[in-house]
Amino acid sequence: MKAYKIPEATVMRLSVYSRYLQQLLEEKVETVSSGEIARGVGVSSAQVRKDLAYFGEFGTRGVGYRVEELFGHLMNILGLDQQWNVIIVGAGKLGCALARYQGFRERGFQICAILDNDPAIVGEKVDCLQIESLDKLKKLVHEYDIKVGIVTVPAEAAQDVTDQLIESGVKAILNFSPRVLKVPADVILRNVDLSVNLEVLSFNLTYNG
Amino acid sequence: MKAYKIPEATVMRLSVYSRYLQQLLEEKVETVSSGEIARGVGVSSAQVRKDLAYFGEFGTRGVGYRVEELFGHLMNILGLDQQWNVIIVGAGKLGCALARYQGFRERGFQICAILDNDPAIVGEKVDCLQIESLDKLKKLVHEYDIKVGIVTVPAEAAQDVTDQLIESGVKAILNFSPRVLKVPADVILRNVDLSVNLEVLSFNLTYNG
Repeated sequence: MKAYKIPEATVMRLSVYSRYLQQLLEEKVETVSSGEIARGVGVSSAQVRKDLAYFGEFGTRGVGYRVEELFGHLMNILGLDQQWNVIIVGAGKLGCALARYQGFRERGFQICAILDNDPAIVGEKVDCLQIESLDKLKKLVHEYDIKVGIVTVPAEAAQDVTDQLIESGVKAILNFSPRVLKVPADVILRNVDLSVNLEVLSFNLTYNG
Repeated sequence: MKAYKIPEATVMRLSVYSRYLQQLLEEKVETVSSGEIARGVGVSSAQVRKDLAYFGEFGTRGVGYRVEELFGHLMNILGLDQQWNVIIVGAGKLGCALARYQGFRERGFQICAILDNDPAIVGEKVDCLQIESLDKLKKLVHEYDIKVGIVTVPAEAAQDVTDQLIESGVKAILNFSPRVLKVPADVILRNVDLSVNLEVLSFNLTYNG
């Protein structure tokens, strides 16, 4: 498989472009220029062209990009032409909200299991999913061939849960806990700190407001 | 007020550094090197030094940074030495999870109100907050001097809600809806697409896994 060496910021924008193209597809738009994509998602058109150029030529001069074709390419590049099975560890408020988050399913991420160590909530339903006990982690990861784990446990439990996920064969971790986690080099870790987003706003409000 | 022209990725890392420093403060660590910060948060030490250099010299050669001082500087830079009042529009699962998210409060973001247009849930409690009707938006924004709005309504309602927030005087919007929003140039918009984070993982699993 070809290894693309591209910046993470580019990958994130490709994801945003693909969503915009999906919107256009739904509106039955057939072709789109880099300028239109740029305006649609709020970046410069030079940026759009540069990002797409990482993957070769998609567009036709004067015509632009065929929406359906470009959408298909981007979904393929993002690895979204397949289903990813996902496990959530931590069935607190955030874990349950993520389990129900429609946006994941729409993009091919199937939440197969949600676990917690609190016996008081094990067995409760989150939509169609039943909250399972933490000690079923390994069994469930194997059963559903899960490659992606989402960690939404409190900070003090996060490293332990992460270690268990990796031992069970999970290859990518999305960490919502505020703790800095250690993972082996062959495991992909991504930290999502919801506060960071608000802090970018407060920075901008303070200095550019 | 000095306007810093720094890349958003840097601001996001400053936010992460500040959280790591807070961890160190709690552990009563007094000084830290750029290398230690780098290892702690998973970036290169050159990156740490470059990011901090945007704001002048903090460290002392051979000694490193004084944790408390650097933490204070970063919080000040991020605009977090004050409280920001926040309104959430959309009291669905995600909106409620965000209203209860402890991490916001810890960093000075006070959720003052949560609104919804569904009469069936208006009046219900989300922890100590009562869900208010959407038509109280303007009144509540004024009453609490709210500058930051979080949009967690379905895509089709997102632009309308955003327009209402801006009309009421909100200056920064955190958009969790999958819709691309239009805002005037003096309003700061930040889109949080939870799926994007999973998609960066799926990209990396596909091409570098």
